[in-house]
This record gives sequence, structure tokens and C-alpha cells, in this order.
Amino acid sequence: MFLANPETNPNPQPAPVPSPDASATPAPRRMAIICSHGGLDQIYPALILANGARQAGIEAMIFFTFWGLDAINDKKVDHLGVNMAGNPSSPMPTVLTGLPGMETMAAHMMGKKLTSLDIPGPREMLEMLDEMGCELYACELAMKFMDLEEKDLIPQVKGVLTVGDFYDMSEGAQILFT
Amino acid sequence: MFLANPETNPNPQPAPVPSPDASATPAPRRMAIICSHGGLDQIYPALILANGARQAGIEAMIFFTFWGLDAINDKKVDHLGVNMAGNPSSPMPTVLTGLPGMETMAAHMMGKKLTSLDIPGPREMLEMLDEMGCELYACELAMKFMDLEEKDLIPQVKGVLTVGDFYDMSEGAQILFT
Amino acid sequence: MFLANPETNPNPQPAPVPSPDASATPAPRRMAIICSHGGLDQIYPALILANGARQAGIEAMIFFTFWGLDAINDKKVDHLGVNMAGNPSSPMPTVLTGLPGMETMAAHMMGKKLTSLDIPGPREMLEMLDEMGCELYACELAMKFMDLEEKDLIPQVKGVLTVGDFYDMSEGAQILFT
Repeated sequence: MFLANPETNPNPQPAPVPSPDASATPAPRRMAIICSHGGLDQIYPALILANGARQAGIEAMIFFTFWGLDAINDKKVDHLGVNMAGNPSSPMPTVLTGLPGMETMAAHMMGKKLTSLDIPGPREMLEMLDEMGCELYACELAMKFMDLEEKDLIPQVKGVLTVGDFYDMSEGAQILFT
Repeated sequence: MFLANPETNPNPQPAPVPSPDASATPAPRRMAIICSHGGLDQIYPALILANGARQAGIEAMIFFTFWGLDAINDKKVDHLGVNMAGNPSSPMPTVLTGLPGMETMAAHMMGKKLTSLDIPGPREMLEMLDEMGCELYACELAMKFMDLEEKDLIPQVKGVLTVGDFYDMSEGAQILFT
Repeated sequence: MFLANPETNPNPQPAPVPSPDASATPAPRRMAIICSHGGLDQIYPALILANGARQAGIEAMIFFTFWGLDAINDKKVDHLGVNMAGNPSSPMPTVLTGLPGMETMAAHMMGKKLTSLDIPGPREMLEMLDEMGCELYACELAMKFMDLEEKDLIPQVKGVLTVGDFYDMSEGAQILFT
């Protein structure tokens, strides 16, 4: 199994607690990951990088925005497609990958492959990240853009942030835009 | 309105001025955002993150490269399409989203949605960013690749940078590749 | 020529050697670039940013994961396609760009343009990066996902890293996800 989950790894290395005397101690390392795409193949890098950060004792948050909101949309998270156009070296030309049903089939094949590697599906992965202390947030502006409300999101989402909130929380972090 | 613009917010929080004694004062926080894609949905994350940075008093620059040059190309900025393949969870299969006219229709729908949220179109957004002190730059190598000259760009672009220049300007910054 | 290569620039500015007394000297600047897509147009930003970093005396590594593994796959590196869907402002509608042969044609045109700018093809570019001291790594999890083994990779790849290894190596770096 590639990913430690809270059941098999009950004691993941905790993130260091910041000292009250911040001038004497460096701030703990922190990853702030922006997830902006909604394909199954597009969200896994964010989820796996967040998981790896927590396993390494690094603080982690994911900020879901634009199409990335699909990954925390309770109605969509179990039905994400695969962005086959993101892989132009695939033996299938784009015109074939675009046929109705092909994205679903690709998602099915990717799901089987993830299972064979003991990697959970997206909903379980997000639950696991929440249990590991990775904070999940939705982007307020993108929520308005997509006509979504908090009740549309999976319960693991800790809150809805403005871009300003995101900047407050990502000060000193290594930020990744995925 | 989600985005403060210079008219409604005449006094955005200024970025802190670096002290002459750099050893005593930490450098001001700075975002260096690379914009490498040219779809309407692909450039907004860069524009909105830059806007949010300036609103938070954080220094910001955007380095437009590859397809991202379309966003500052005076002839193209008002006619950007939407990259519908970036959203494989969309109810429309890729083959339909690829029909001639669909990207234009999607761009039209996205434009209407942005307007309803009081978010300006790309040209006005770039003008606003320039007024707010966000620096806009074009990538020299990508300009050659696309056969573009400075006169092809919108006037808000401050200059054309080599990758080496970009590294000089992004030392100590949080860099995002979008 | 835009890119200095080891032949024409036999003495690129070396990255500063970290002092044994780490408390007295700041760590050298380091770029950790994640390459997650496999299109010819999608890998060049990573390659060019890594090249620019080494030219500027900045330490650099590229971590190839997911579709990005195609770029270091010995059988695929010479046959990468172009992700035309990444450029929705292109005058060609997606449905046309998806026709069999169009991605190959686009790759051929892009290759010719790169040659005219004295930019090497991907294999030569990776060899050059290796000679310049840019470290190339493959993602272990993605290797399993793609059923790849180390013998399938180009010889310049220094090793296969877990996500945890990547975090160890990217501490203090500016990380880019491309």
C-alpha cells in the first residue's frame, strides 16, 4: 500500500507545534495546495501531494477552486471523469477519446488501477485527508460562479474562504497550483 | 462585488516598502504568477490570485508565457475561448464540447456569469491589475515562438523578460505556475 | 540561441556550495519542478524553467509524475504529441484538432519552430539538463500506476522517488507544479 491511512498508520508523524516564541523557532513547514481542475487524473496529484505532506509531518491544506470544486461536490465526487485530452501522447487520438462514454470508461479503468494499488477513491481519500489533519477549503468566488452552497459540499470541508483568507493562511507556505 | 477595483477601493492596502537595512527587516511578501494557458477559464485563476494579492498588500507580478500570451495579445484578449476539455465532469461529452461554436458559446456564457458577479472581462481586469500595481510581463522566448512583438501586446505590459530576468525578480517570492 | 548548453557555455555559473555552518549562511536557492503532463507543449515550460534556473546558478530538480513520465520514457520521449485542447483560442475548433494526425502534425510544426529557435528536442534537452546539474527524478507511485520500471526510462534519470523523498528534497525550495 502506497498511502498510509489513519487505520493502518494510527500514528502519522504529527506536524510540529509552533513555539509560542515565534522569533526563536522557525515556523513549521506548510503546503498550501490549490486544486483548480476536476478530472479524476487532475485531482489525484493534489490529494497525493497533500497525503504525502501529512505523512512527512508537514502541515497541509487544499483550496478547491473553479472546476476543482467538483472534487468536494457531494453529488459529483463519485462520478469524476478523466481528462484524456491532458495526455496527447496517448495512443488514442483525441477524436476517439472524445466519444460519449470514453471518459466514463477511462474513469472506470483508472478506478480499477487505483484499487489495485490500494489507493482509495476520491471520497474516501478526502475523508482520510481530513482525519490526517489536512484542511479542506472551498473558494468563495468559485462557489458563487458555480451556484454552489456549503450544503452542496462534502462534510469534510472546513469552510469557504475568500482569496484574501487564502493568502492569510498560506503566508510562508510552499504554494502549489494544480 | 467580489473584486475591489481602484475606483471603488481607492486606497487598497499598499505593499510594505522594503527597509534600506535588509538584514533587519524581512523582505515584503511577493507573488510571482506564471500564466501559461490562454483559455478564459485558465487565465482567471492567475488574474484573481494577483488581484487578491494586491488587495492583501502583497506584491504581485504575472509572467505570461506560451499560450498565456493570448491574454495580453491586443488582438486576442477580447476573444478568448473556454477550455472545456479541462472539465471532464461536465455533463457534455468532449465530442460535443469540441463542435465548432461550442467554445465561443461557453465563453459567452462564462462572460455573462462573470458580469453577474461584477467581475470585469479580461482586458478591463488587466487594466485594473496594472493600476493596482501588479506588474505584467511577457516571456521573451515565448514571444519569439509565437512570432509576437511588443507592439502586439496590450499597453499595460511593463516589459519582456527572459527566464533569467524572471528568476531575478522572483527571488524569495511564492511562485505559482498556472 | 536562447538556451545556453554545456558545449557553447562550458562554464555555467555553478550553484553556490552550502556552507558547513548552515546557521551562518542562507541555503542556496533551489527550484523543485513537478512535471505532471506529457504533451510537447506541456513539458517545455518545465524544461525551460529548469534550464533557466541552472543558467542563473540556481539548483534545480524535475520530478516527473503521472503523464509527465512520458517525457522520460525512453520509448515515448521522441514521439510526444501537442495538447491542442490547451489552447482554446486557437483558430482551429477542438473537433478539428482532435482528428487523427492533427496532434502529430502540430507536434511536427512545434518541433520545426523549436529548431528554428535553436531549442533542442526533448531528449537532447533532457541530456543537456542532466549535464548542467539539473536532477531528473521519476515518481514511484506514478511508475506503478503506469506499469513502468526503471529500465523503461532514459538513462539521465537519477532515481525513483516517493512523494516523501520529494518532500525531503524540496524543503526550502520554490516548488512549481506544471
